[in-house]
Amino acid sequence: MKLIEAVDLEDIALGAALLGAGGGGDPYIGKIMSRHSILSNGPVQLIHPNDLEDEALVLPVAMMGAPTVMIEKLPNGGEASGALLALQKYLAKPVRAVMSIEAGGLNSTIPIAVASQLGLPLVDADGMGRAFPELQMASFTLHGIPATPMVIADEKGNSALLKTIDNPWAERIARSFTIDMGGAAMIALYPVTARQVREAGIVGTISYLKAIGSSIRQARAERRDPIASILASTGGRRIFSGKVVDVRRETSGGFVRGTTRVKGGENYAEQILSIDFQNENIVAHVDGKPVVTVPDLISVVDSDSAEPITTELMRYGLRVSAIGIPCAEAWRTPAGLKLVGPRSFGYNLDYVPIEVQTGGLPGLVDE
Amino acid sequence: MKLIEAVDLEDIALGAALLGAGGGGDPYIGKIMSRHSILSNGPVQLIHPNDLEDEALVLPVAMMGAPTVMIEKLPNGGEASGALLALQKYLAKPVRAVMSIEAGGLNSTIPIAVASQLGLPLVDADGMGRAFPELQMASFTLHGIPATPMVIADEKGNSALLKTIDNPWAERIARSFTIDMGGAAMIALYPVTARQVREAGIVGTISYLKAIGSSIRQARAERRDPIASILASTGGRRIFSGKVVDVRRETSGGFVRGTTRVKGGENYAEQILSIDFQNENIVAHVDGKPVVTVPDLISVVDSDSAEPITTELMRYGLRVSAIGIPCAEAWRTPAGLKLVGPRSFGYNLDYVPIEVQTGGLPGLVDE
Repeated sequence: MKLIEAVDLEDIALGAALLGAGGGGDPYIGKIMSRHSILSNGPVQLIHPNDLEDEALVLPVAMMGAPTVMIEKLPNGGEASGALLALQKYLAKPVRAVMSIEAGGLNSTIPIAVASQLGLPLVDADGMGRAFPELQMASFTLHGIPATPMVIADEKGNSALLKTIDNPWAERIARSFTIDMGGAAMIALYPVTARQVREAGIVGTISYLKAIGSSIRQARAERRDPIASILASTGGRRIFSGKVVDVRRETSGGFVRGTTRVKGGENYAEQILSIDFQNENIVAHVDGKPVVTVPDLISVVDSDSAEPITTELMRYGLRVSAIGIPCAEAWRTPAGLKLVGPRSFGYNLDYVPIEVQTGGLPGLVDE
Repeated sequence: MKLIEAVDLEDIALGAALLGAGGGGDPYIGKIMSRHSILSNGPVQLIHPNDLEDEALVLPVAMMGAPTVMIEKLPNGGEASGALLALQKYLAKPVRAVMSIEAGGLNSTIPIAVASQLGLPLVDADGMGRAFPELQMASFTLHGIPATPMVIADEKGNSALLKTIDNPWAERIARSFTIDMGGAAMIALYPVTARQVREAGIVGTISYLKAIGSSIRQARAERRDPIASILASTGGRRIFSGKVVDVRRETSGGFVRGTTRVKGGENYAEQILSIDFQNENIVAHVDGKPVVTVPDLISVVDSDSAEPITTELMRYGLRVSAIGIPCAEAWRTPAGLKLVGPRSFGYNLDYVPIEVQTGGLPGLVDE
């Protein structure tokens, strides 16, 4: 049995910031919440879904909304647990473990805080293997597992139990709620069994986050290039380095949307990397040519420290490197690409895996 | 014990159309639904709240949304009962009677259909004594009775159980739902006891609707002026007669809003009556001078037949009479006026009761 101690949160949050692919909210807040909870209530057991009985109930919890709002509107710590307990009450079945629905930013660490508060273990898995902006974009949807019944709750005390006919309807209705609730809300959703986590979830995510974070931390300590460590631990490729010259950002409809533009430095000063985002980075073009698209991850990090930079903290003048990281295999199937491929976000582009695409990248500074 | 038979629906629907004050949806649909239900399942008992034990659970049901949408988006008949049963299940207490939350249009007759479908009695009461556009505008709010837990459901199979910190929040969140669901949805809300209905409801509403409808029907049969019958049965005043010359109407944010303009005929051909509406008629001005405002009712009827004309069916060329009708006493208190007076709708006007106001009305053709 593994334990998540307060000291592990640094690495997990760092890995989560990277797999947040620009979204998932500021991991700092989730780290503070979970640290506080672990120091008060003790460490959290990190278990494999095999450690649970097949029919044991597992409940994911998350924060929903635009990350730009999440960083202004701090959760009070009780709503996420409250949402989970309300859903448990409705299901009339005890929750055996908490889970992350997405491996990214805040939503990787909030479930740790909840698990600690409630004295429950955390399953080493998630439903995306990264962060995605919409709630139906989970591997469970590929297996026909409904997102509802779900509970959505704000910090004021408003809540709703939703039952919808499909997962896109859950997204639509919960998104309106989120907007009414000020742009961000806590959710408990996708009630699943341990067997469903094993069959339909992305297993091993929390360990993966911790390994990524740990490799970055060690590289920094040993004065090695931390970006090289990221590439080694994720199988990713560095696709561009340069200076941020422009960020357009708009928060509307419960999302933050926009474009980051980076002008290439060093050997390719005249090239422009342009990254469109909807909470998360969605599509990256270099000089108008697509180089990485969803479902592969586009993560932007500080060129020196490899600190991941979320879309809401991106700003003019930062020296950054963009990294493409292969997504979980589940997303590379026809059904997976239909749900989260570039066309599902409105781009008339075919998905080309990062490993193939970057072979011919101009100005590629691969290790 | 009184019974509501199929034959009674005509009078009830006619009275409901009048007290709908322009809103409440097309009573024709509710009449068809309830007639069908009564013919299949038998008549409905109409009971006084005193006929129930103090703690007996009473559940109001209604359709929420813009009447313009309601008339396009017919309920399938099962959602209203489904919403009520879902709320009953959550409350874990048997419902002893169904109730109307507003006495107006569709929302007076839908509860009859539900009562008949479920074999439950209908309480002779409502929560407004008329129709109002927003769900917190109920007499229960004046007594601190929460609108939630409430259930909202669409015809597709989506539903939500809401719990909110106050009744305006219930309105806000349920309104968003209604918009997501296509502009109209079924709701079960304000779970109350029989004692609360007696103390905080508007008692006798269904009998009142039936008496109004019956008086109009009899006047027509006896070739008397049916508008005079309305004035006699409601204590109302005719405030204007003329031809509709302009209707501005916009459906947005889950409401239909606009203005009806009527040019005075007969003795005052140069006067203009202007009625602003938000689902229901809110404020009537004659030549810029306010003559009737919420919470008193502004009902517009055909000048010959006295058939009430809802805001969504109002159109150029109709010969109409506008009638002001005194509201329930509960609304004339300071708390009542704060909740539903002209200022709560954004008008910088003091409320003057219709009985006082129309004393000096220009062109008044009172009986």
